[in-house]
Amino acid sequence: MSNDSSTRIVADLDAWVATAPPGARLPSTRELVRRYGASPVTVQKALRALAARGLVESRPGVGTFVRVRPVARPNDYGWQTAALGSPRGLGPWRSTALRTLPNDVIALHSGYPDRELLPERLVRAAFTRAARGDAAVSRPPAAGLPELQTWFATELGHATPAGVAPPTPSDVVILPGSQSGLGVAFRALVGAGRPLLMESPTYWGAILAAAQAGVRVVPVPSGSHGPDPDELARAFERTGARALYAQPSFANPTGAHWSPALAGRVLETVRRHGAFLVEDDWAHDLGITADPTPVAALDDAGHVVYLRSLTKTVSPAVRIAAVIARGPARERVLADTQAESMYVSGLLQAVALDVVTQPAWRGHLRGLRHQLAARRNLLVAALRDHVPAAHLTAVPRGGFNLWVRLPDTTDLPRLVRECEADGVVVAPGDEWFPAEPTGPHLRLNYAGPNPGAFADGARVIGRALARQ
Amino acid sequence: MSNDSSTRIVADLDAWVATAPPGARLPSTRELVRRYGASPVTVQKALRALAARGLVESRPGVGTFVRVRPVARPNDYGWQTAALGSPRGLGPWRSTALRTLPNDVIALHSGYPDRELLPERLVRAAFTRAARGDAAVSRPPAAGLPELQTWFATELGHATPAGVAPPTPSDVVILPGSQSGLGVAFRALVGAGRPLLMESPTYWGAILAAAQAGVRVVPVPSGSHGPDPDELARAFERTGARALYAQPSFANPTGAHWSPALAGRVLETVRRHGAFLVEDDWAHDLGITADPTPVAALDDAGHVVYLRSLTKTVSPAVRIAAVIARGPARERVLADTQAESMYVSGLLQAVALDVVTQPAWRGHLRGLRHQLAARRNLLVAALRDHVPAAHLTAVPRGGFNLWVRLPDTTDLPRLVRECEADGVVVAPGDEWFPAEPTGPHLRLNYAGPNPGAFADGARVIGRALARQ
Repeated sequence: MSNDSSTRIVADLDAWVATAPPGARLPSTRELVRRYGASPVTVQKALRALAARGLVESRPGVGTFVRVRPVARPNDYGWQTAALGSPRGLGPWRSTALRTLPNDVIALHSGYPDRELLPERLVRAAFTRAARGDAAVSRPPAAGLPELQTWFATELGHATPAGVAPPTPSDVVILPGSQSGLGVAFRALVGAGRPLLMESPTYWGAILAAAQAGVRVVPVPSGSHGPDPDELARAFERTGARALYAQPSFANPTGAHWSPALAGRVLETVRRHGAFLVEDDWAHDLGITADPTPVAALDDAGHVVYLRSLTKTVSPAVRIAAVIARGPARERVLADTQAESMYVSGLLQAVALDVVTQPAWRGHLRGLRHQLAARRNLLVAALRDHVPAAHLTAVPRGGFNLWVRLPDTTDLPRLVRECEADGVVVAPGDEWFPAEPTGPHLRLNYAGPNPGAFADGARVIGRALARQ
Repeated sequence: MSNDSSTRIVADLDAWVATAPPGARLPSTRELVRRYGASPVTVQKALRALAARGLVESRPGVGTFVRVRPVARPNDYGWQTAALGSPRGLGPWRSTALRTLPNDVIALHSGYPDRELLPERLVRAAFTRAARGDAAVSRPPAAGLPELQTWFATELGHATPAGVAPPTPSDVVILPGSQSGLGVAFRALVGAGRPLLMESPTYWGAILAAAQAGVRVVPVPSGSHGPDPDELARAFERTGARALYAQPSFANPTGAHWSPALAGRVLETVRRHGAFLVEDDWAHDLGITADPTPVAALDDAGHVVYLRSLTKTVSPAVRIAAVIARGPARERVLADTQAESMYVSGLLQAVALDVVTQPAWRGHLRGLRHQLAARRNLLVAALRDHVPAAHLTAVPRGGFNLWVRLPDTTDLPRLVRECEADGVVVAPGDEWFPAEPTGPHLRLNYAGPNPGAFADGARVIGRALARQ
């Protein structure tokens, strides 16, 4: 029964299979039991492991055989070129922020937090509880678990000032992650061929979702204070757009946090043009020296369609987000969500609700704030010390990222390549621009693994930059 | 600490809050502890329960207050009508198959199996194991867990005859449920405005996904033997379509199971037109008196894009499906999947893999086959006994559904309404037609709860039909 003896049998048979002719029959279970002095259970486990890797196949009642692997002949898929036509705006996208890397590099590229920033104990306990509950074997309503809808509505309601009607639980639609929410919002509220205003730079996943939805992206210049409100008003007038996508709190990548005055002006502009603001509050739980202030809380006339995700603060395994929308927009959002994903795993919803309603959740968020502050300060100091040519447009008051402007003459692809050759992975800023980049940038994530290596990472960037 | 005393405090405070003015401050925790003779933990738990329901709100360090609910004034969302325009093919869809109902009705409408048909023990054990593993707190590769990709490829490989190259693990893209797979396939392989051939009748979720993707649906007549191959060839010629969507094994709703001859002819037609067959093998594990025979197993030239889901046989909480595609089509599918959902919860993937690689999984599938056979036979007999006017076009050899033709003169909406008034919920066949229905049909699901009530259900349908 021991794992060790099963592992040994797998290794041994693996070597045997590698040289055996396809279709060859393995010794019988009885023979293997005898040969290895192992139990039948252990032998069966080893055979299943080989089968799972596609090396052997069992024919019940007959035996186990080396899998026949047909000789690989290169297939000509040329006919697909005609059938598929050219990609409609959505080529194969290789985002740097999504790359998975070996442990021995200094990773400043990621879009996701390191495991040590997650409430691991809460998440594991919630999964264990949920495994025993109804949610493991039942189907939730299409719009989501009512208790989770209530939680999302209440969270936004807390930020709602007097005189504004807070959202109700039925305004909430649960989604399998915020990326789905972007697609849903762009399809449901804008539609293919119609204009959508976006900040430039902005979140690369939103640029991707816009391309998939086939909407026409209209970039609006933005920076460390948020979008320019005059340019925004002109873009609405010029294009007749009925929607703006933005991240008002701790925007990715710039870290911009809208002032109350800007939030008021943008909301006023959106209202005047009878338009929607798709507010992506991705960093709601990631404030460091400021608290998020959802624009959605200021609006009860259905202009702001609000998107909030729990994936980044609860766990990457808990792909749960919510759209809060009112009026007919909510119906459109729900219809598109159903067409896209029917419903979201009730177990993941139960786990998300369990984690965020634990008393320890608030404490976790306070600890996260301190850790993010320390990590941010460490990376800022490392850049000041070792990359003097880099200009940090602003120290972000929340979120995961520093947005670094490099000298105009920087050869960005070469810089990224040379850093990687020296064991430091960074994300080129170009991926965050829906239009031509306004200059060479890096987006550096301070929420990744091993902050102790930030100084070394900055040194490598500094040296690579100095060589140019 | 007892649940009972917490429940009692909630009930008590609930009554108090109902009559208190908004903004009123609740007694302090200390006071509540004294008043109820409960522990501070119990009191806090009660307050959290009230907060979760949106009745009170806590201001840390200040106290707990009755939530201010602004006077509900009806909002005018009329401006949204102009911003949204008319729905682009995707109105609010209320599928009968998705309805959740109270326990006291006879439910023959559902698209999902009853809990007693699920491998509940395996699912719970897998979730419990996964809660302790890496997958609970980490992010898998975008295309899916390699071991799960291998499993899906191996499953299809088992059906691949000699001389045809089986798919490789890298041809597999993991998705959050098969509904997502339909959207992905229609967007990635067809695209808005282009023609897609579909059987009529066919799965309503596919009709919905096609509307969402904005493709132009071209219906091809189909029945209990599958689509008419001559009509199919004519439709390809007439429209220049480069894709067909179909369910060759135990189609929903007709139960059609393609003969080898039909599979060969369809594949030949698809090849001749340089087109794709999007094969939705939804009932792969639901054979009763026949085994599924994927058309994808016969093709290694990238013509068949194969979709298989585990949601219906593992658990509705395990939203896991896979697309298997080769050549550039696989790149398009992966790009669209990433744009739509970034990646699928690694924990759900780990659970799915755990369940289907357990030795008990095969035994579960054998038991499922027997249960489906018994349930199908029971409902067929009940219809013969009590609904003589209904015509069962064929007894399906797999799947969940009977497809019942009613007399031409049947007033279908009235029939459905009257059955429901008598406690029997049935799905009107119209929802499965992408074009005008060819006649009044019912789709009756024999995998739902309480097969002991099938006879009573049939009696109600028979009586309602006799009244017309």
